[in-house]
Amino acid sequence: MQLPSLLLENAVNEFAKLPGIGKKTALRMVLHLLKQDTEIVTHFSETIAKMRKEVKFCRRCHNISDGDFCAICANSARNQQMICVVENLRDVIAIESTQQFNGTYHILGGIISPLDGIGPDQLNISSLIHRIETESISELIFALSPNIQGDTTIYYIQKKLQNTPCTVTTIARGIAFGGELEYADEMTLARSLANRLPVQQYVKS
Amino acid sequence: MQLPSLLLENAVNEFAKLPGIGKKTALRMVLHLLKQDTEIVTHFSETIAKMRKEVKFCRRCHNISDGDFCAICANSARNQQMICVVENLRDVIAIESTQQFNGTYHILGGIISPLDGIGPDQLNISSLIHRIETESISELIFALSPNIQGDTTIYYIQKKLQNTPCTVTTIARGIAFGGELEYADEMTLARSLANRLPVQQYVKS
Repeated sequence: MQLPSLLLENAVNEFAKLPGIGKKTALRMVLHLLKQDTEIVTHFSETIAKMRKEVKFCRRCHNISDGDFCAICANSARNQQMICVVENLRDVIAIESTQQFNGTYHILGGIISPLDGIGPDQLNISSLIHRIETESISELIFALSPNIQGDTTIYYIQKKLQNTPCTVTTIARGIAFGGELEYADEMTLARSLANRLPVQQYVKS
Repeated sequence: MQLPSLLLENAVNEFAKLPGIGKKTALRMVLHLLKQDTEIVTHFSETIAKMRKEVKFCRRCHNISDGDFCAICANSARNQQMICVVENLRDVIAIESTQQFNGTYHILGGIISPLDGIGPDQLNISSLIHRIETESISELIFALSPNIQGDTTIYYIQKKLQNTPCTVTTIARGIAFGGELEYADEMTLARSLANRLPVQQYVKS
């Protein structure tokens, strides 16, 4: 695709760097912006740059925040003794949208994945250990991706916590609601069988 | 979807204004930018703003250009006596990628569509008439959308040109290459029959 202007081409290339955006979609976006008033496009670009420059991360849970502490950590109505350990902000948004969790979070910023060069030192693990040691945490819930990397991360953190009294749990793995048994993989089905629930408990939840 | 930061929310809302981008995709883009260095994001936003501020339109054909005249109008190796009338830049890119056209373009900036409030005055029609009257144009090729609005636009412009000697043509309408005859609409099929070609001519093209 040959573009008639270098300015246009640069803008298209910038958009095409975003995840899931190819050159054609990028061009569509740029042509859309080109139709807008200059002020609107300036506002667009300033909002993005300002967001990157000024956004802060909560000192306690590493959530994105406008101040030193995020709205969840600063909210005394939430159970501050419960930590749900997640990979990233999107997981926080997903769990928050269930409206079933009233504790706090701790964002690791990823999971241990040696193949991608991500070790424990690149993640917010030491600050999690520090929180558990200094705050009076009653329960730690792991809500990480259900794969080898997620399990490795749980195993690694759990080993570090052997002397702490808090309960450590992980969200249930199993057949998803609405899923078909015959299409479930063996690992999921095997875990689902091993961690079977009494029907009374299942009906209640 | 509730976001933990106003800065983040503003950025997501800006991205969500782009065509084809919903809130979830916008969040994915913003979180991607958040992972990048500040300089990279600043460069992204500056490139977009600069493009909008500095991009020019060719004085002759209204194509996007870095200078007063676009690369196509400034290229003396192209047939400057042939004008292909198109709706927008994307059509220019599409035709250029066929490498079959060596003339110049004229970008109308849309087609006459009274329902959308677009009349002849909002389009670059007067400059097209001016070009045909002052430059020695030998052929005018309409490559507009094959619908009522496109046909109206062709009809309108053609009426204005009754006293000019140049040949006026339109790109062929018909069954697309690889298309199925049985799924073609009646209008296309009828036109395709009415404008049938001698096989000798078809085989050559």
